[in-house]
Amino acid sequence: MIIIFKVAVLISGKGSNLQSIIDRLHIKNNNIEIKCVISNNKDVLGLKRAKDSDICTYTVNDCNYKKSKEYEKEIINIIDGQSIDLIVLAGYMRLLSPYFIDYYYPKIINIHPSLLPSFPGLNAQQQALDYGVKVSGCTVHFVDKGVDSGPIIKQKAVVVDSNDTVNSLSKRILKDEHKILPEVIKLLSLNKVKLKNRTVIIEER
Amino acid sequence: MIIIFKVAVLISGKGSNLQSIIDRLHIKNNNIEIKCVISNNKDVLGLKRAKDSDICTYTVNDCNYKKSKEYEKEIINIIDGQSIDLIVLAGYMRLLSPYFIDYYYPKIINIHPSLLPSFPGLNAQQQALDYGVKVSGCTVHFVDKGVDSGPIIKQKAVVVDSNDTVNSLSKRILKDEHKILPEVIKLLSLNKVKLKNRTVIIEER
Repeated sequence: MIIIFKVAVLISGKGSNLQSIIDRLHIKNNNIEIKCVISNNKDVLGLKRAKDSDICTYTVNDCNYKKSKEYEKEIINIIDGQSIDLIVLAGYMRLLSPYFIDYYYPKIINIHPSLLPSFPGLNAQQQALDYGVKVSGCTVHFVDKGVDSGPIIKQKAVVVDSNDTVNSLSKRILKDEHKILPEVIKLLSLNKVKLKNRTVIIEER
Repeated sequence: MIIIFKVAVLISGKGSNLQSIIDRLHIKNNNIEIKCVISNNKDVLGLKRAKDSDICTYTVNDCNYKKSKEYEKEIINIIDGQSIDLIVLAGYMRLLSPYFIDYYYPKIINIHPSLLPSFPGLNAQQQALDYGVKVSGCTVHFVDKGVDSGPIIKQKAVVVDSNDTVNSLSKRILKDEHKILPEVIKLLSLNKVKLKNRTVIIEER
């Protein structure tokens, strides 16, 4: 019997991290399947990328719901209908409520373009440049109720150059995001990620 | 005419970073001279290391001064008597007052065992392990009035292993401290470090 590890990906925009998961993991002998892609914005490139790979897509437009809880219940309906093992936030720009986080913890992961705990929240790359760090990077972490504060699974450092702009730095960090997010999903699918309080142990061997 | 770049090093303990500066820079065709080593604790290994290299040493024991300003004036007397170009805090465990910082800014640098702005203050390596980061490192920065908050000159990332203890991580970070602190002093002596607001530009070429 083949057990498939089922992933839901939440996006808001162009979905380049989604594409890297599709390219590196989706089916391809990995026993990993992206069951659905959910976007809070309609007509974004990420949805097209999913459709091009025959992945189910859903647009749950947050403007259509008066209360955050109703909006999230709609997402929960989609996810629970497909026995999802992991929810991946890949450039999903809407905060999730404690209700949603509690419901799934620790089954939600996020990719963030800084070496957390430095520069949580929006515009992490600009924050890093404004601070003047010489090393930044990216982080994959479990999502808890705080802003980018959950247990860290994997990080990768990126050197900041003197002449970096927010675009050049973001591009270089994004290259590493495309590597470490699929790596973490693969490790999770193989049950090699153990959470001990807030420390994550990777059983790589 | 040879211009010598004159450095004062402030320490509190064993002075391994002091030793790396002595070994890599002191005299040796670098036109850099450690003119004095000042410790707030007597009989520490760092003072012996300085004496072994014929560097003047001073112990200014903070317990002997009722007011921080009197203590710091004593240090200023020593430093100003020797036309010092740069003050290096190398494991100096006493906070300096805004009075002292203002007096010398931006001529004081510090080495800190984390990738700032993550984990400022004491026990940075333990803080990093407690948080569960997968990448830490070290930072050389100009000292401003905050705690480890000044403009960053150089940083080096260090991978954190799943089985790291505070000792094993500290040792690995210390190896890189021993590299980047002398590198920064050398760059400063060559006037290749430019401060633009809080961003540091290194003119490496």
